[in-house]
Amino acid sequence: MTRHRDKNRGAGHKDRNDTGGMIWLWGTHAVKAALKNPERKCRKVLISQGADPEILQHAARSKVIVENTDHTAIERALPRDSVHQGVALLASPLEEQDVASVIEAAKRPCCLVLLDQVTDPHNFGAVIRSAAAFGACAVVVQDRHSPPASGVLAKAASGALETVPIVRVVNIARALEQLGENGFLRLALADEAAKPVESLDLKRDIVLVLGSEGEGLRRLTRESCDMSIRLPTTPAMPSLNVSNAAAVALYAWAIAQRT
Amino acid sequence: MTRHRDKNRGAGHKDRNDTGGMIWLWGTHAVKAALKNPERKCRKVLISQGADPEILQHAARSKVIVENTDHTAIERALPRDSVHQGVALLASPLEEQDVASVIEAAKRPCCLVLLDQVTDPHNFGAVIRSAAAFGACAVVVQDRHSPPASGVLAKAASGALETVPIVRVVNIARALEQLGENGFLRLALADEAAKPVESLDLKRDIVLVLGSEGEGLRRLTRESCDMSIRLPTTPAMPSLNVSNAAAVALYAWAIAQRT
Repeated sequence: MTRHRDKNRGAGHKDRNDTGGMIWLWGTHAVKAALKNPERKCRKVLISQGADPEILQHAARSKVIVENTDHTAIERALPRDSVHQGVALLASPLEEQDVASVIEAAKRPCCLVLLDQVTDPHNFGAVIRSAAAFGACAVVVQDRHSPPASGVLAKAASGALETVPIVRVVNIARALEQLGENGFLRLALADEAAKPVESLDLKRDIVLVLGSEGEGLRRLTRESCDMSIRLPTTPAMPSLNVSNAAAVALYAWAIAQRT
Repeated sequence: MTRHRDKNRGAGHKDRNDTGGMIWLWGTHAVKAALKNPERKCRKVLISQGADPEILQHAARSKVIVENTDHTAIERALPRDSVHQGVALLASPLEEQDVASVIEAAKRPCCLVLLDQVTDPHNFGAVIRSAAAFGACAVVVQDRHSPPASGVLAKAASGALETVPIVRVVNIARALEQLGENGFLRLALADEAAKPVESLDLKRDIVLVLGSEGEGLRRLTRESCDMSIRLPTTPAMPSLNVSNAAAVALYAWAIAQRT
């Protein structure tokens, strides 16, 4: 389902020759979570005065080199305008996963989020964070039209990139077909759909399919779903920011599991 | 409740002397909504090739001067890196409102969102948009610690700044006291709260109180609420992005009104 690709693609650093295939992560939550993740090989932490002191404990526990430095040195290592909170970590990218392994490993019923051409890493990151918060088992994206697993994404996901697998697929329609074969109810979120999300029985395996804000879902993506559903929004403002829409739908699924 | 202040404060333009107290708005949704809003005095629209042609109809209907120009000229008028989609509008800021007038005008039961020190305009804007989508009647913020009603905010709110009043107050605790006197249930969102939002009877007037992401709610703000509630998040990722948390709580309130 996923195609082989250069793991370096996700690098946030400007001079990739320096990092030997590793990527820079930054920000308190993202770095702490990466240090705790045994799947990440961590090379070194840059830390400046005023950074969260817990970082040092996590680094010591993971036996990672710590360089005490200053804000300017951290800024030099990172893309411009990175909100690093005084900490940056050089670490390996995570191994890629595919749909089959993710649903095999998941506790059922499970919920996946599939993003169709959501290109903004802040939105993508916030969706990953909400997916972690409401116990979704993966976020599926099209490899070609989604931001790489960079430091920007990790920061926006606030540590959730370490716990929610990102599945990058070549073909969205094929992934939806595969999920259908595995009993997943495929729900396309669309402002103009007739069925409100709160009217559905969500106590089952589902995949929530959301499109980009400008274009919405592509026709083929929507046709690959079992039904279109909408959030109970007012006609004056039918659509939400995509990460807000995902959070609401994930919440609807999460509370359905508790009944 | 609100204090008198310079209306120009919200200006997104670098050279305010040019705009005569007016502010620049940009982006398709924000400009369309502003042109449709009779409360905005609109001076002129800049439009470049490829912009949404509906803008021209709205401008004609509102009798606003249209300048056909190019991307570079639009960029010159706006703050750096504004995603303007080929359209900018010079318009008056909106009149300020206060708590008393907002709740007097609202259909009851009504829901307010109160943001305590949310400084990021993208988050603030997304909250305004979700407030509009789920029929909330206002967003209340502390004047001193919140972004001005600039073009950045209007863009993030995607037109919702025209329909959801923003109430800027000097003192958050005093605003909460006033809402309590008016029968509003004051709900503080906090990760560690015992009461899950889905267990409450929300078919009533409420105010949802959310804090900044780093610091959370200040003690005095929380103590001014009737209770703390939480979203049903997992221990691994207890907190959401503030706009996502607001969207989920607004949804919970909106569906409670339908039962």
